[in-house]
Parts: sequence; structure tokens; C-alpha cells
Amino acid sequence: MFEARLPQGDLLKKILEAVKDLVTDANFDCSSTGISLQAMDSSHVSLVSLLMRADGFDHFRCDRNISIGLNLLAMSKVVRCVGNNDAVTMKADDNGDLVTLMFESQDGSKVSDWQLRGLDIDSERLGIPSTDYSSVVTMPSAEFARICRDLSVIGDTVVITTTKEGVTFASKGELGTGKIALRQSAAIDDDADSPGVSIELQEPVSQSFALRYLSFFTKATPLAPTVTISMSNGVPLVVEYPVGDMGHIRFYLAPKVEDDA
Amino acid sequence: MFEARLPQGDLLKKILEAVKDLVTDANFDCSSTGISLQAMDSSHVSLVSLLMRADGFDHFRCDRNISIGLNLLAMSKVVRCVGNNDAVTMKADDNGDLVTLMFESQDGSKVSDWQLRGLDIDSERLGIPSTDYSSVVTMPSAEFARICRDLSVIGDTVVITTTKEGVTFASKGELGTGKIALRQSAAIDDDADSPGVSIELQEPVSQSFALRYLSFFTKATPLAPTVTISMSNGVPLVVEYPVGDMGHIRFYLAPKVEDDA
Amino acid sequence: MFEARLPQGDLLKKILEAVKDLVTDANFDCSSTGISLQAMDSSHVSLVSLLMRADGFDHFRCDRNISIGLNLLAMSKVVRCVGNNDAVTMKADDNGDLVTLMFESQDGSKVSDWQLRGLDIDSERLGIPSTDYSSVVTMPSAEFARICRDLSVIGDTVVITTTKEGVTFASKGELGTGKIALRQSAAIDDDADSPGVSIELQEPVSQSFALRYLSFFTKATPLAPTVTISMSNGVPLVVEYPVGDMGHIRFYLAPKVEDDA
Repeated sequence: MFEARLPQGDLLKKILEAVKDLVTDANFDCSSTGISLQAMDSSHVSLVSLLMRADGFDHFRCDRNISIGLNLLAMSKVVRCVGNNDAVTMKADDNGDLVTLMFESQDGSKVSDWQLRGLDIDSERLGIPSTDYSSVVTMPSAEFARICRDLSVIGDTVVITTTKEGVTFASKGELGTGKIALRQSAAIDDDADSPGVSIELQEPVSQSFALRYLSFFTKATPLAPTVTISMSNGVPLVVEYPVGDMGHIRFYLAPKVEDDA
Repeated sequence: MFEARLPQGDLLKKILEAVKDLVTDANFDCSSTGISLQAMDSSHVSLVSLLMRADGFDHFRCDRNISIGLNLLAMSKVVRCVGNNDAVTMKADDNGDLVTLMFESQDGSKVSDWQLRGLDIDSERLGIPSTDYSSVVTMPSAEFARICRDLSVIGDTVVITTTKEGVTFASKGELGTGKIALRQSAAIDDDADSPGVSIELQEPVSQSFALRYLSFFTKATPLAPTVTISMSNGVPLVVEYPVGDMGHIRFYLAPKVEDDA
Repeated sequence: MFEARLPQGDLLKKILEAVKDLVTDANFDCSSTGISLQAMDSSHVSLVSLLMRADGFDHFRCDRNISIGLNLLAMSKVVRCVGNNDAVTMKADDNGDLVTLMFESQDGSKVSDWQLRGLDIDSERLGIPSTDYSSVVTMPSAEFARICRDLSVIGDTVVITTTKEGVTFASKGELGTGKIALRQSAAIDDDADSPGVSIELQEPVSQSFALRYLSFFTKATPLAPTVTISMSNGVPLVVEYPVGDMGHIRFYLAPKVEDDA
């Protein structure tokens, strides 16, 4: 038996909004340590990896490891019905055939029960090697979303370049060219209202990526005020958003090899 | 001659928004006691009944009974031009051929006159028997609208069930099932900010209804913070929204006979 | 070499929003006194005329007169990326082949460079005779936009009529007729919050105009809280919005000759 209760149900809503357009079917892999999900997008270009640790739930019970396969679009439709301050409980029987989502309003006056059929999804879990990245950029998530949107006006590829001074995002296309430069904030104070731009630079990186996928990733923007972008030459970049204090959602995307940006 | 002046013109705007998608042409029946309207929706499944009592107008003159036939979609387009604090005056000549709507801004600096051609609409007025309903649920109108919208994700029929404890709304479909339970508020205090859920229960009721029509009815939500849903087994339910202090708009819908919800 | 820096970049954004649906390609004519643009709409019915004086820029350098031809839709897509408090710098080489727009955030932490290809646009500059208009109406720009929108429900032509008392806008069509009357404000105080309606009347005017074009003009509404409408019988009306303190945007539209409104 699996049962987990998340006091801030809107976290689940934001997670589903972040992945539903990228991934159709996926397994929620539940164990005593928490819930994880790993899936390629439907064109097998990018990879999503979600982690929600057990200690972030106010109740978590998982008698034995179980994979709950769900259609994420269907699940997102149901999860969109979560009220802003609702708690969400996920339940599944031992074979994961029937999945229950229960939403409770804070004062307990409204309770909804939703049952979805579990799916049998073949999936191979990729080992993602932990990497030391040459450049790790932390920046406001809304700014990253805006840059992806703005550059999409110009082209479909972005060249991200890091230096000691900052990070630039550049694109070109029929209309012309666009280049956006962010300077590393002189001092990153802990002002949560306006998180700055910080760069941990072991060596400079310059890589091209498909804007279409980066834009998909930015659907996770409501999850957190900051996003972390990790890059090394020749390996996939990682775009990471924290999920409350309990985990993260990570998107991986390989650089474009041709230098046609 | 008919002439009636409504100080809160936005009431008329909200009424038209509530009925324009359900009913195409309808007669406004004017008498010395007020204005009423009764119409079937275009597929003859549900019935709308509007009452605006004469005493709710700050000027009301109706020399003899008159039926003003109007295309509600055309009227709603004009009424959408009412400013938020405008007063609205409706006028008609004795045969109802020409209908004037006059909107006046509060300070009188802006006056608009709109003339619509009256229509000759055949309509039979149904006698609606006044019924003692087994269950009368009063609840926040926005909550009712949200439940109809949320369950539409799952199915096209809702089973509404009342008990002493509360009321449940349930649906099922290809994705799975959904059931939303509202508990009767322990104490219904007169806190207009958060009206609770109250149930007058003579006997429990469980009936199936088409969500499509209930969703149409919830277009009246802006009219009032609360809605009243009256049900008895085997008779149409009534969904009622007050119209200021001057009347109401009621929607009638027969239950689905097959138990296919 | 041409280079001009505008501290309030959102002015440029609002200007582009105002003209991009009306005019496709246009020349920005730059001289030591400032920037001007004159263009017919694509169906050659109305005329747009923009003026931005050099003294409204905080840096302005124009070594020799130059015409910078741009596709306004492409430019508006780029200019939409201007942040709310960004400064915008326009640059061009001497033949206007390459145009650079640079946006800088207030604290200098974000700088974007956009390059657009300049176009070679044939255009004849019309001399617009300065006219003494019989009636000049100054009114809230949002009210004018609303009137154009509201009357579009009824018809496609508006008759604008001025008298000593005020100004009326009337239309008719299949649904019926609509007439909106604005009374001249008793006293035009300098309350910028609610600018009133004022009319300088040398003689009354009554002229018909195509609502479609007036509605296009009202896309300039965000530029300013008031709009000035100047009319004389038999000559084009002028709809003018100020551009900050540095100039204006004017739209010219000839009256409809047939009296079919």
C-alpha cells in the first residue's frame, strides 16, 4: 500500500503544469525514501527528472516499492481542480491499478476524491551520471522564461555563453539578431524579492540549444523564484527548479552539435 | 407606454450574460407589478424564469401589460456597453415595436440611447407549480460554478446527493471518477464574505443531471454570492440566483432518467 | 551616424503597438531636430504621422539626415521585449542598412542588443497643410476607445457631431441604432485623474467616419490619458495622442462622402 499526503497541494499542480506538455505517460516510482519520476519527452530529445523526498510529506507510507503509471495530461486535468490551500493525498493499491487523489480544503469542509486508472508503462531508468559542471548559472526563473520567450521572436536556437562577467543568450533568424547579456550581480544579497544572477565558473562555456525545449522547461517557472542552469561543453545542460524544500525538477537537454545558431 | 429605470445598470448586464447563451429570443412581460421573462433554452431541455419586481426600480410605469420580444444576443451586445455605475432606462411604445435602452453615467455627463427592434415572439407561459422540495442546498455560487467546471473534466453527468451531513457531486467517465463532498457548515453565521453551505433536508435526494446545462446556469454567478439548489426525487431541480433585492433568476432542469451517471 | 537614447523605452513600445496593425513598412526620418514618420495605412485610406523631437531624448546625435526603413511588425516584435523601465537606444550606420536597438535595464544588469535589417522603402512625404479646425474635442482617450468599440456593435460608420453643449457619436445597423452623447464638462479642472471633455467650437460639425479606422487609431490609447479630435466639414479629421512631452502621433481620416451612416 502507498499513501502520501502533501500539505501544499498546489506544488503538485505546478509540477503537472511543468511536465504535462512535455511528457505524455510516466511512472511515479514510489519507495520508502520518496517519489521520483524520470521520463523522456515524446520526441526523445529532452529528459525530465522529478524528486520529492518522503520527509517533505506530512504523511508518507510506502510498504513496498511501486511504480504508478499515469497519463500526465489526464492527471493534470484532475490536479488543476486542487484548491489553492488544499492538501493532496495520493493513494494506490499494491499493483498500482487504481490511483486515488484526495483534495481537502484547509477547514475540512470540502473533500474531493478522484480515481484514475493506473497504466502499465514500460520505462527504463537511465543512470544520470553526476557531473561537475564548468558553469552553473543561478538566476531569477521569470527572467529566464522571459529571455526564452523574447529570443523565440528571432530564432529557434539560442547560444548560451558564460564568462566571468556574466551570461549571454543570443539568437539569429530572418528578422535579424538578438543578444541578451546579464551581468553577474555585484553582490548576491539574500534579498528573496529580487534574486540576482550568480555564476560559478570553472571554465567558460558556449553551447547552442533548441529554444523550443527550453521554453517547455520554463513552464516550471511558478514552482520557484530562481532557476539553476548547469553546463559543460559537449554534455547536456541541466535546468533545475526546486520543489519546495523537498526536492527538485530537472530538465536535461543535449546541445546542438552543428554550430548553426 | 412602458418605462422603467434601474439605478444599478450592471444588474441588467449580468442578467443578459446569464441567459444569452441559453435562450435566443424571449419576451420581457411587463405589467404594473414588474418585469418577468420565461423561456425554454433552444434545445427545449431547460427553462429560465426571471423576475424583477417593480419596487426594485427607482421609476416604473407600465400603463398596460405588454410583451417586449427581443433577441437576447443582440440585447446583450448593447447591454455590455453599460458602464459600471450607469443607470439603465428601458422604454417601449405600446405595441413593443421599438425598444429603447438609455444608459446614464452617474454624473450625467454621458448618456447613450440604443434602439432595438422589438420581435413578435410566440410563447406559451408555463405554469410552474410551486413545490415543496425535499432538499434545499444554499451554497457559495462560485463554489457551485467551480464544482460544475471541475467535474466536467471527468464526465458529462453529475449525481447530486444530499444527506444530513452534506451534499456530494459525483461524475465518472473515461479518465476515471470524481466525487466532491461539501459538509454542511457547523454554524451558518451571517458572514457575507464567506457564505457557508446549508441544507434544509426533508428527505435525502440523489439525482443525475446534465453538467452541460448546470454549467450554462452558472453564468449567472456574478449576480450573487450564493445560489440555492432545490431538489426532489423525480422533479426538475431549481437553481436560483437572487437579482439584487428585487427578484431572482431561476433555472429548471429535469433529472436524467436513465441511471447512466 | 545616427544614435538616439530614449530613457522611457516603453514609449517606443506603445508607439509600435499603435501603428503596427495599420502600417506595414515605414521610414523613420531622422534629422538633427528629431525623428518623424509618415505613412499611409496599407489600404491607403488613413495617414499616420509621428513626431519625436530630439530634445525628448537624453542623447541624440544625427550627423546627416537619414531614412531608416523598417518593417513595423518585425520591429514591434522586438520592441515588445523592452522591459518596463528599460532605456532604448536606436542606432544606424550612415546608409541605414543595419539598425540596432539596445535595451538597458535601469540598474544596467541586463542589456540586450537587437539588430534588424533596414529596408529601402519608397515613400513620398505628403505636405499636410496646417488647418484651423472648426471643432476640437479633447476627451479621455479610454472613453474614446470605448465609444468606438461600443458603437462597432451596431454599425460600421459613426457620425460625430459637435455642438456647444457637447459631442455625440451615432451609428446604426441591422440590430438598431446607438447614440452616445458626452456633455462638455462644466469646468475643466486640471485633475489629471479624470480629464473631462472640452470642446473648442468655432462652428458645429457633423461628419461620418469608418469605425474600423477609428478603432485602429485607438490602439494608441495607452500612450496618453487624453486624445484630441479635430474636425472641419469636408476635410479629414485628426486624432492626436501626445507622445510624452516630446511629440505626438496623429491619425488622419477623410470623412465618408455618401451620407449612408
